[in-house]
Amino acid sequence: MNNSDSRPKVVIIGGGFGGLEAAKRLKNRPVDVTIVDRKNHHTFQPLLYQVATAVLSPGQIASPIRRILRRADNIEVLLGEVVGFDLKNRKVKLKEDDDIAYDYLIIAAGARHAYFGHDEWEDDAPGLKTIEDALEIRRRVLLAFELAERDAIQKGSHDPLNFVVVGAGATGVELAGAIAGIARRALAKDFKAIDTKEAKVLLLEGADRVLGSYSRGLSEQAKKDLESLGVEVRLNSFVTEIAPGEVRVGDEWIDATVVLWATGVAASPLGSLLGAETDKAGRVVVNDDLTVSADRNIFVIGDMARVENEDGSLVPGVAPAAIQMAQNAAANILSDLNGGTRKAFNYKDKGSMATIGRNKAIVEAGRFKMTGFLAWIAWLMLHIILLIGFRNRIFVLSEWIWAYFTRERTARLITGDAEELSEALEFLTARPAHVLETEKESIKSA
Amino acid sequence: MNNSDSRPKVVIIGGGFGGLEAAKRLKNRPVDVTIVDRKNHHTFQPLLYQVATAVLSPGQIASPIRRILRRADNIEVLLGEVVGFDLKNRKVKLKEDDDIAYDYLIIAAGARHAYFGHDEWEDDAPGLKTIEDALEIRRRVLLAFELAERDAIQKGSHDPLNFVVVGAGATGVELAGAIAGIARRALAKDFKAIDTKEAKVLLLEGADRVLGSYSRGLSEQAKKDLESLGVEVRLNSFVTEIAPGEVRVGDEWIDATVVLWATGVAASPLGSLLGAETDKAGRVVVNDDLTVSADRNIFVIGDMARVENEDGSLVPGVAPAAIQMAQNAAANILSDLNGGTRKAFNYKDKGSMATIGRNKAIVEAGRFKMTGFLAWIAWLMLHIILLIGFRNRIFVLSEWIWAYFTRERTARLITGDAEELSEALEFLTARPAHVLETEKESIKSA
Repeated sequence: MNNSDSRPKVVIIGGGFGGLEAAKRLKNRPVDVTIVDRKNHHTFQPLLYQVATAVLSPGQIASPIRRILRRADNIEVLLGEVVGFDLKNRKVKLKEDDDIAYDYLIIAAGARHAYFGHDEWEDDAPGLKTIEDALEIRRRVLLAFELAERDAIQKGSHDPLNFVVVGAGATGVELAGAIAGIARRALAKDFKAIDTKEAKVLLLEGADRVLGSYSRGLSEQAKKDLESLGVEVRLNSFVTEIAPGEVRVGDEWIDATVVLWATGVAASPLGSLLGAETDKAGRVVVNDDLTVSADRNIFVIGDMARVENEDGSLVPGVAPAAIQMAQNAAANILSDLNGGTRKAFNYKDKGSMATIGRNKAIVEAGRFKMTGFLAWIAWLMLHIILLIGFRNRIFVLSEWIWAYFTRERTARLITGDAEELSEALEFLTARPAHVLETEKESIKSA
Repeated sequence: MNNSDSRPKVVIIGGGFGGLEAAKRLKNRPVDVTIVDRKNHHTFQPLLYQVATAVLSPGQIASPIRRILRRADNIEVLLGEVVGFDLKNRKVKLKEDDDIAYDYLIIAAGARHAYFGHDEWEDDAPGLKTIEDALEIRRRVLLAFELAERDAIQKGSHDPLNFVVVGAGATGVELAGAIAGIARRALAKDFKAIDTKEAKVLLLEGADRVLGSYSRGLSEQAKKDLESLGVEVRLNSFVTEIAPGEVRVGDEWIDATVVLWATGVAASPLGSLLGAETDKAGRVVVNDDLTVSADRNIFVIGDMARVENEDGSLVPGVAPAAIQMAQNAAANILSDLNGGTRKAFNYKDKGSMATIGRNKAIVEAGRFKMTGFLAWIAWLMLHIILLIGFRNRIFVLSEWIWAYFTRERTARLITGDAEELSEALEFLTARPAHVLETEKESIKSA
């Protein structure tokens, strides 16, 4: 496909919620579209924590991008990694020493978690953004129980099992609740030498409440719900250091078998390559039609875009915002072709919901609030509806029904090649420096 | 747990078909059992090829070993890697610098594929024995189509897609048939720039027929069935060399985008550490009660054991044989405890079956033979019944019904960390040496 076609060429970078929605809006319209992603699949991120905690299999929350767009005759799907731009000649550069020409560009490459300038913490405290992240977390969580069981059998005792989750946003709350759930229920009967119910789950939050984007009442309800599941919640607790086997909060070192990271945002580094202004999190400051000032044919959407609401607050990095931005960008491109004028983007907050554990969730939409079992059912139903693919919906619903009634977690495989497994083992068996110190001293004094 | 208990201690190495059956037979009997495996899960190997070809997810054909044995109060499950034995003191040595004492030892560590002394071929031609193997094969097969599509879009043409499967035993036949199936059906509509139906699947077999353990008539039927699915079958074709992007058969170099290895047997190296006689494939020559001569309390079963039938033929390395051996070993241990005499092992061949592709399979049991659709239904039903776990049965059956009627393959994720992906890319984009030669010469002569 070349640029001499009469139809304008739209290139979309990223097959997440934003990129995919943009592609769908341009499906079978008078443009030629190429969507490029490093992965061959769209990942339904809201359910990633269920892959990490052994409820679902990766294939159930991901669909091949080209399968989703198979009926769009004007859309090409390209597996590739974008490494930069030739803004002057309107080309996207691929890692594969190749480029793609565009007339319009929609950049929707998303964000990862950020370590507050401590990227060296990533190995010790993995975050949750991709299928691979989820499998890494599942590996560590399940291995931790296996190693404790082995110690109990072979040595007669085991170190306490401490799971520490950093950040009490939706992902942190969901992970903490789910790990407490599997320790108390799903694994309890399968381990004979250890009591999995004794595992501690600690949720650390820097602010003074969990789920800070909700109203205070709901935050308090969520905290109570977490505690009833066995999660210890510590507010106003900033992590100042992470080292093998331990986490420091202020001056206190906390032993940690597994540390999971669920806070901070770092937008895709592609944003900084546009020559546009970016904020601290790497988000691109965009015009009111989501374009960059240098080129009104370049749109930045989703987690990569810094967009302010009328009240000065930021549009949150959530799927509905990315989807609304994609719709706006696609509509403006189509409007251009018809000689229309561009519409400014306006975020409509339709409410949000977070699940906490079995039977517990919170829902907030404007003044409407809901908690407990009904909120949980609403959460389940909405996520089934939003999941892409009829088959995925059927299978995930079946898995949930199964898991609910049997209280089992069935995707309990520890997978990984030899290298991945030995790496995970290394982190899990690391002895905290302060323990090593104490041991040294006790040897000295002996 | 220590050896001073009055109950004898049985250690089982391996949680495959043999090890698991032995554990089940010793469940809640007057012995203390420890089963040790490197993985936390039992893998249902007969369906691995369906994970490799995107029909099933790993979690659907694997179950945690400790979950399967949760109701066995006398059985401990240990995640660990056995690296040797202290035969004199009756201890199994673990990699973790640890050991387990035993009174009885059942070794059921299985086998991998063998490369006829060419272990260097393994990277170019992966085999299929574990979940990780299956994900590696899935990654290469799906990436091959993605790269061809990218070339077609970006360069206007692509190299021919050649999938070469070496070895026409059950695994080779199943892989070849399944790859031809996805190329012709499941992927056809999703790729727009390439015609996936043009992909070639070549099945190479050294002997003069496919599925050599069946009768000649069935081999011929299977070959016809494969050809009708679009697989090119080459008999009497020994692979003499494998290099990036190509396979040599005799003097002929064949271009190969992806090479898969499905032949040869190498028993677990643990067998050679017993000081017992082993054959070329590393199988341990055992007494008629499956024990080794040096210690009648050490049993070797399954793919690791070399056992002859009365007619001098070898007991095949299949699940039913491993299960029967496990039953014999467990019965003899229990008989010892009651002062009984040991029974010799006798393999009862109850028949075998192999599936070839949609609607096609062969079944042979003594003089009974079946082919075609009915054989295929029999294959499906038997495998659903044998699969471990009620949940797995329900979900795999649902996946099959879905896949049959929609002709889709839904577990089409390409997963892997950056390293795994770039390694796979390297193999897939390797240009055969003979092509590089030709290119060099054409540059010279130009």
